[in-house]
Amino acid sequence: MKVAKFGGTSVASGTQIKKIKSIITSDPDRKIVVVSAPGKRFSGDSKITDLLIALGNAAFAHKPAGELRENIIDRFSAIAEELHLPAQIVQEIDETIEQILSSDEPDHTKMDALKSIGEDSSAKLVSTYLEMAGYQAKYMNPKDAGIIVSDEPGNAQILPESLSALASLREEEGIIVIPGFFGFTKDGQLMTFPRGGSDITGSIVAAGVQADLYENFTDVNSVYTVNPTIVQNPKEIRTLTYREMRELSYAGFSVFHDEALIPAFEAKIPVCIKNTGNPDAPGTMVVADKKPQEKCVVGIASDTGFASLYISKYLMNRELGIGRKLLQILEEENISFEHAPSGIDEMSVIFRDNQLTRGKEEAVIRRIKSELNPDTISIDYDFAMIMVVGEGMNNTIGIANKAAAAFSDANVNIEMINQGSSELSMMFGVKTDKLNQAIQSLYKTYFD
Amino acid sequence: MKVAKFGGTSVASGTQIKKIKSIITSDPDRKIVVVSAPGKRFSGDSKITDLLIALGNAAFAHKPAGELRENIIDRFSAIAEELHLPAQIVQEIDETIEQILSSDEPDHTKMDALKSIGEDSSAKLVSTYLEMAGYQAKYMNPKDAGIIVSDEPGNAQILPESLSALASLREEEGIIVIPGFFGFTKDGQLMTFPRGGSDITGSIVAAGVQADLYENFTDVNSVYTVNPTIVQNPKEIRTLTYREMRELSYAGFSVFHDEALIPAFEAKIPVCIKNTGNPDAPGTMVVADKKPQEKCVVGIASDTGFASLYISKYLMNRELGIGRKLLQILEEENISFEHAPSGIDEMSVIFRDNQLTRGKEEAVIRRIKSELNPDTISIDYDFAMIMVVGEGMNNTIGIANKAAAAFSDANVNIEMINQGSSELSMMFGVKTDKLNQAIQSLYKTYFD
Repeated sequence: MKVAKFGGTSVASGTQIKKIKSIITSDPDRKIVVVSAPGKRFSGDSKITDLLIALGNAAFAHKPAGELRENIIDRFSAIAEELHLPAQIVQEIDETIEQILSSDEPDHTKMDALKSIGEDSSAKLVSTYLEMAGYQAKYMNPKDAGIIVSDEPGNAQILPESLSALASLREEEGIIVIPGFFGFTKDGQLMTFPRGGSDITGSIVAAGVQADLYENFTDVNSVYTVNPTIVQNPKEIRTLTYREMRELSYAGFSVFHDEALIPAFEAKIPVCIKNTGNPDAPGTMVVADKKPQEKCVVGIASDTGFASLYISKYLMNRELGIGRKLLQILEEENISFEHAPSGIDEMSVIFRDNQLTRGKEEAVIRRIKSELNPDTISIDYDFAMIMVVGEGMNNTIGIANKAAAAFSDANVNIEMINQGSSELSMMFGVKTDKLNQAIQSLYKTYFD
Repeated sequence: MKVAKFGGTSVASGTQIKKIKSIITSDPDRKIVVVSAPGKRFSGDSKITDLLIALGNAAFAHKPAGELRENIIDRFSAIAEELHLPAQIVQEIDETIEQILSSDEPDHTKMDALKSIGEDSSAKLVSTYLEMAGYQAKYMNPKDAGIIVSDEPGNAQILPESLSALASLREEEGIIVIPGFFGFTKDGQLMTFPRGGSDITGSIVAAGVQADLYENFTDVNSVYTVNPTIVQNPKEIRTLTYREMRELSYAGFSVFHDEALIPAFEAKIPVCIKNTGNPDAPGTMVVADKKPQEKCVVGIASDTGFASLYISKYLMNRELGIGRKLLQILEEENISFEHAPSGIDEMSVIFRDNQLTRGKEEAVIRRIKSELNPDTISIDYDFAMIMVVGEGMNNTIGIANKAAAAFSDANVNIEMINQGSSELSMMFGVKTDKLNQAIQSLYKTYFD
């Protein structure tokens, strides 16, 4: 049994839903389908969920909503017409919106209900289309499916009891279509997940039914070895481990949110990332473990927006606790650090610079000066981090050598190297304006 | 004006003292001389200071001292005879020992007085020898010279007022010979420095008199680019900055204790390390700054005896403060850390393993498990650290490249890289049994 999840672009139009119908029905193992809300059909188009949120915000602020509601209904009508579905299905969506907006519930409850309409309608459209084409298929509400969540509107967390509740889905006949992005509390209250939450639904359902495979259909052929906006037509990754996926996701790989996959990872369900527009392409498999001979560099990730705080103090390494105190000051100022390379009389702390407003920067520097009395202190911005990822690479002689040579070839100075804790990544800090040339040179070294 | 300090081997015998006489008198700028206690004349010989300490320990424990006192006197007699000095000088040393041992002072006061006899007698022998050879020379007690220290027996610290007190030595006629290793409190109490303390005396005297040069005479021609026990006949370092010296000293360069030089460094007095046995060799200059074109790798230092504590925890990088808490546990267990490389879900802490007894290891692991709840925790021993040092190297493209290639050529896996805080060093962790081959390959890369 496979669980197939289709992202927003895969259900953005009737044409796309025709494609997913043929994907679903071409493999009898594809018994459970999870869908997102209709996404963008073209660059500049709106996502249904964004329109629904805007509608809610306007209504709760008692401001005019313009043609938001008409736009939403028009999108669903266009899909229904293209698929020759009965007009009643769209009329029911409009009635649901009316019902929510005119109810006496608190605003956050109404907002969660509004936001769920995108996925919920998507599932109804897809299941009806499959039924009308002669397949045994049915829409299933997350409450009936058994997706039980915490009471946190807009930020619901899956509760562990979902797993056993979902297991009974294995017994269902035909194809089941479940809307992503929301679940229900034990008291039956609808709650949405954080954004990107359809991946959470797909992942927990795959884990609950103990699927043989969780397929994640999106709009790219695979996960790429490097960001395609930096390197043209980069190689595709065939197989990734969960851990490699997590390291890559950390630094800018945005195919999907890695934390959404945790339920699938914990149940050791293999995940396949595929392209709705090109379903015959092999895609990228994400698995628990790889054969040793496959262990090498699999990808290069990068991210910008880092800053480096530097302090120096003569004989610092004799001062027990100074490194800890520096981290504690940052912690008390609510700054989470990424790395802390240290010399003998020096220490740097690398952190994401969006945590530091001008006022906070001054406060942090003032505290460090008065509490640690350093000889020098400075904060540098515009750092980018590059992560070279691959299982087993840190036990491979010559990997660091190749990386360092790539930076040298690209004429890029390495500002920071962090290696020694992770078994499957090496991290390099460079100046942001040197990032692209460094990445291109690393790509050439490992993949060309 | 130059201040010349002679180490233990340089005053170990009459023959050695003849050499230092010709060094002192060959340059009229060598106006102030600081001497250590007689050291070893040959491998297996005793240092006078060790004999004096053993004598004190035996006496205070009311145990028989064997022939310790005779051995001490014999050493001084041999020197005096070889230099044709009056026997009275040795008799006075013996009387001083007798006086100390029979006094009513507390043991720590007697011990400090006993320990000071080595340097004090050395200075008297040298000054008398210079005088008898027709030079204007005199012994000067540290109290008269102005070396004012804190009241910490065996661990005295120089007080800043020494600087102005010492300045008047500039007005003295002839050659002044000052014993190293001890000073006097404001109340006139004799206190010795920590071991190696003659360097402290030399350095503070050079700073106090604003010497043009502080010459540190020892038994090697220079500071070497790498440990000569690992690489045969390594290249000599001509010029080092203070900062380079400090980084090299940290990891195994034991020519002298870098902290002893702080007074000279602070006063920006250049330091020259020379060989008593080969005074015409240029030696190694230690200076405040170098010309930019001289900036490159100057030396490779290494040290063994490190351990690595590793913890991993899924989603660790979302947990504010976990890194700080780990360091705090170690701090509370009195373990000072050297480096803390971190991955996304992992963190390692490198520390000197002599801080960890079996019992403490268990306590640390127990606390980390219960307070941080990591997925995995482990401690690995037998790490060695290698430091490649040179001003400006971290802004030189290709330095990391060369280093990484050297490890790869030597077939040594790099367990850890720490670069990014210090401007003048890169640090590498390797397994101890791979240290020598890594160092040899690095030496070849940078110096051959």
